[in-house]
Amino acid sequence: MSEGSDKPVRVGVLGRGTVGAAFAELLAERADAVEAASGRRPELAGTLTRTEGDFEELLGRSDLIVELIGGTEPAREYVLAALHAGKPVITANKQLLARHGEELFAVARESGVQLRFEAAVAGVIPIVRVIQESFGVTEISKVFGIVNGTTNFILSEMAATGAEYEEVLARAQELGYAEADPTDDVTGADAAAKMAILARLAFHTPVSLSEVAYDGIEAIQPDDLAYAKEFGLSLKLLGVAERRNGGISVRVFPCFLYGGHPLAPISGSFNAVMVEAPSITEVTMSGPGAGGVQTASAVLGDVVSVLAGEAPLPEARTQLPLVHDIKSSFYLHLEVADRPGVLARVAQVLGDSDVSVKSVVQRGAGDDARLVMIIHECLESRFEAAVDALARLDDLRSPPRSIRVIEEEFV
Amino acid sequence: MSEGSDKPVRVGVLGRGTVGAAFAELLAERADAVEAASGRRPELAGTLTRTEGDFEELLGRSDLIVELIGGTEPAREYVLAALHAGKPVITANKQLLARHGEELFAVARESGVQLRFEAAVAGVIPIVRVIQESFGVTEISKVFGIVNGTTNFILSEMAATGAEYEEVLARAQELGYAEADPTDDVTGADAAAKMAILARLAFHTPVSLSEVAYDGIEAIQPDDLAYAKEFGLSLKLLGVAERRNGGISVRVFPCFLYGGHPLAPISGSFNAVMVEAPSITEVTMSGPGAGGVQTASAVLGDVVSVLAGEAPLPEARTQLPLVHDIKSSFYLHLEVADRPGVLARVAQVLGDSDVSVKSVVQRGAGDDARLVMIIHECLESRFEAAVDALARLDDLRSPPRSIRVIEEEFV
Repeated sequence: MSEGSDKPVRVGVLGRGTVGAAFAELLAERADAVEAASGRRPELAGTLTRTEGDFEELLGRSDLIVELIGGTEPAREYVLAALHAGKPVITANKQLLARHGEELFAVARESGVQLRFEAAVAGVIPIVRVIQESFGVTEISKVFGIVNGTTNFILSEMAATGAEYEEVLARAQELGYAEADPTDDVTGADAAAKMAILARLAFHTPVSLSEVAYDGIEAIQPDDLAYAKEFGLSLKLLGVAERRNGGISVRVFPCFLYGGHPLAPISGSFNAVMVEAPSITEVTMSGPGAGGVQTASAVLGDVVSVLAGEAPLPEARTQLPLVHDIKSSFYLHLEVADRPGVLARVAQVLGDSDVSVKSVVQRGAGDDARLVMIIHECLESRFEAAVDALARLDDLRSPPRSIRVIEEEFV
Repeated sequence: MSEGSDKPVRVGVLGRGTVGAAFAELLAERADAVEAASGRRPELAGTLTRTEGDFEELLGRSDLIVELIGGTEPAREYVLAALHAGKPVITANKQLLARHGEELFAVARESGVQLRFEAAVAGVIPIVRVIQESFGVTEISKVFGIVNGTTNFILSEMAATGAEYEEVLARAQELGYAEADPTDDVTGADAAAKMAILARLAFHTPVSLSEVAYDGIEAIQPDDLAYAKEFGLSLKLLGVAERRNGGISVRVFPCFLYGGHPLAPISGSFNAVMVEAPSITEVTMSGPGAGGVQTASAVLGDVVSVLAGEAPLPEARTQLPLVHDIKSSFYLHLEVADRPGVLARVAQVLGDSDVSVKSVVQRGAGDDARLVMIIHECLESRFEAAVDALARLDDLRSPPRSIRVIEEEFV
């Protein structure tokens, strides 16, 4: 910020939803603290909503723009205009960053102004700052975690109550933990955008959102969670960005974790992110993933950082390939006909595909007969081929279901 | 840093212990990354040890000083000289900061240079940056956690094996988790210094190390941990800094946590810190609390921050009183004579002191008879008076033992 420290900093806010309203309130409430910390007193320049205000006019009398309208347009247009005008921008917009991050970073760099976005990923957990600043020169090997509170709430409730997905989703919607249209959350798309941003920051390489593979939680059945409970496992929707085979893999998928895993106790709508590197071992951060005042608090932290001065803009230091076929371990659930030789035929198909079984449990009988297996780590393409072959067996009463497993210390 | 970006940044290192050696190695290994992130390439200007090198000479040819010698003198003298000379300083020295922080901050502010100290608290967990920057204008209500890895390792081992304190301490020393003289760690003094620093940052108020009350783990008995296991509790050495009664309370003490507490799963030599505030709810961060390369990594992060520019120097925005007598809940363990009326006499003493019992369990018989109680939250001074009165009863076979309890959701 180039102006003298005697004038207040005029903050223009785009959007007046839950976060926008909470931010305006928090900005007024903490103005003294911001002034004490930065030497500049912030004041609200105005708020643009869909029906009120004019963007150009608001931009003209703002020193700093806070973008909280969400979606890609007109958010992208406004953010670019602000950056071109030399005004720092703070945004909580993960879709905008995941889709147009490189363009925005480039314009911010050219204009010599800051673009900050702590609130875009994992709510109040300061993971953006920690990756960019504390671990900015650390050779990060893996960033992973629970970055969607809605799905973690649903999985926690399913595990606690044994209820079906649809029933728990309806309850989550009633309680305000899921939106009326929950598609973005439950399909994993929201988590995929966040992981694209974290991968971009951790590996200093452009990551195209379209290359992030994601699975959601819609197909999870109560008996998957019953199985998890029996073996002391937790089922989580994980986002994982990691170095693999000279490139990086960025994915979102449901996954079983053993009981002692640092992410296993993260329940309800909380988020948690782990960062791994040889020189730091691992650091885990957890907290509320959303909420109006929590997100507003993350935005306010960015305001102070903008006032404090220089910040690292994500440099693309390298261009790493996205690796898609990696090795994973799986849980495999087969509803089978209760007749002789089924296990032998299933084992034969797996063996032919060079897929190795770590453990198998037979459950139920008659119309409830099932085989539940843990498959040793193997290339996912090979596992998928084996599952396709299994699906063609006459012995199966329904399509095979599989969920990835973090095998380490797996019981 | 005021110099042009074409020259390397010369880093003078004081100390060549485990951390110093790891830092020199990491600095060389990550020089490219530091240059990419900051535009300046770092190089080692030299290392001062007890027997080699001259401080004035090293200072003269360094742009930045990294202090890793520990202790208060000559560390204080060196750091002050560097700051007076206008050279930024990075230190991992918790004792220095806890004892002389205000003096150092004042000189850094006058000289307009940075003083950074991420590695002084909780190793690789970036708690200093998060409190100072992400939550720099947040009305923090409480910062607490496990900030000493040695004691957490010992308590974890005692819980896992049932072994005596002395036996586990000896094993920790063998494995390098405890020093030959473990006094600073096991008495809680080390944790007290770290909590003084965290309280200073969280509450923007000077905190005198001499006002931080601390208890260690030396008196912990295997049967305390057996009790914990039976009720699904964890025993941790907690550091707590919180707002209480218009002031702040900063303390270190062993404490039982219920099983679902975010700090309960932190085991071995790991550290974890929680930050609570109305606007963020809570954020928990965990990771290795020490280790040469991990601490060096935290120092390197500070190097990049110094190169990036401005950083908040802790301002004393207020002067909060230290509150010493606060309310707590307790576990109380009494080895009693096995004769009629003991429970009645104990209950009478507690009742006379206005101390209320939540639950009581009688254990053993004859020479092993014991009363194990949970005491409802009450002023600690009142509880201590009750314990003094109990100690005077003829019925007790040994002095009463007590441990604090985080009562929330306590089973």
